[in-house]
Amino acid sequence: MIKAPREKIILGLDPGTNITGYGIICVTGNRVELVQYGIIRLGKTGEQALKLKKIFDKVIDLLKEYHPDEVALEAPFFGKNVQSMLKLGRAQGVAMSAALSREIPIVEYAPKKVKQSVTGNGNASKEQVAKMLMQVFQIKEIPKLLDATDALAVALCHHFQQGNLKPKSKSWEGFLKANPNRIKRISRS
Amino acid sequence: MIKAPREKIILGLDPGTNITGYGIICVTGNRVELVQYGIIRLGKTGEQALKLKKIFDKVIDLLKEYHPDEVALEAPFFGKNVQSMLKLGRAQGVAMSAALSREIPIVEYAPKKVKQSVTGNGNASKEQVAKMLMQVFQIKEIPKLLDATDALAVALCHHFQQGNLKPKSKSWEGFLKANPNRIKRISRS
Repeated sequence: MIKAPREKIILGLDPGTNITGYGIICVTGNRVELVQYGIIRLGKTGEQALKLKKIFDKVIDLLKEYHPDEVALEAPFFGKNVQSMLKLGRAQGVAMSAALSREIPIVEYAPKKVKQSVTGNGNASKEQVAKMLMQVFQIKEIPKLLDATDALAVALCHHFQQGNLKPKSKSWEGFLKANPNRIKRISRS
Repeated sequence: MIKAPREKIILGLDPGTNITGYGIICVTGNRVELVQYGIIRLGKTGEQALKLKKIFDKVIDLLKEYHPDEVALEAPFFGKNVQSMLKLGRAQGVAMSAALSREIPIVEYAPKKVKQSVTGNGNASKEQVAKMLMQVFQIKEIPKLLDATDALAVALCHHFQQGNLKPKSKSWEGFLKANPNRIKRISRS
């Protein structure tokens, strides 16, 4: 008797000081589906504690709604200056806290790793990443929010890193052609 | 009829990557009392997410036990390098999240501001800050954990900044001599 593969939900997060992106995918055996992706817009003004609260509350909402098994975090380790890194660290810490408060494992990936994993090129542009995601998840329109696609990319990267469906960089198109039914459900907001 | 002054609990936090200090004070009218102070030791090894979880859980525990009305955060805005600032930002973000999750207002103070407020000298050493706190709170033994006294200092600073009992830097000793009963309760662990 073959057991049906268990469904796994991965929440990808790309925390930022002004915009935090999120992307949720569902993995069932060899099938990867897009569940949802979007952004938390924090605005450029307002008290920083309120912005952080918005990240915390929204991530908690996502956890309540989609019950992810794992959280994958896009986490740059280097930046231009100490002050922007402190702010970024806070946004990351707040996003992580939401997952920590619910005992959900967090795995971090550097942006280069995400790009490498998803496109085969660690120096790919955001647009190239988005284009690859459009293919993988059969997204028809070009996504306008590249922070959301970054978050989706880190979720997909996490899936690949776990040894599932790890494609060679050049085999994607052929793989997709051979597996037209792999992506079944697309829901977006 | 004169109303009895309302009791207010302030939790001071000094989040750090290896040690997070905390200090809790109780303000009733003109009286300031030490309730508790200590540290959350995170250790130098281990996964960073686990360290952050320890900060989150312990701060939640403090909130549950002492029900602070306000949280005061010691928050340096500058540091040596971007990586240490990212880590510090994460620790701060996690500590803030615990308060945010319970809708407790957070106020931040730069270290210089805390020192200025508590000792009258923005460049005071940790030892000088600790000495002043020993006087204010009638602490008998020299505190060994200067991260804990830093956290206590930010709680006291927050109290002073709210316009209560704001002393002139040189009047402390006289003030304390004139108010020997101001500090009534001392409980430490």
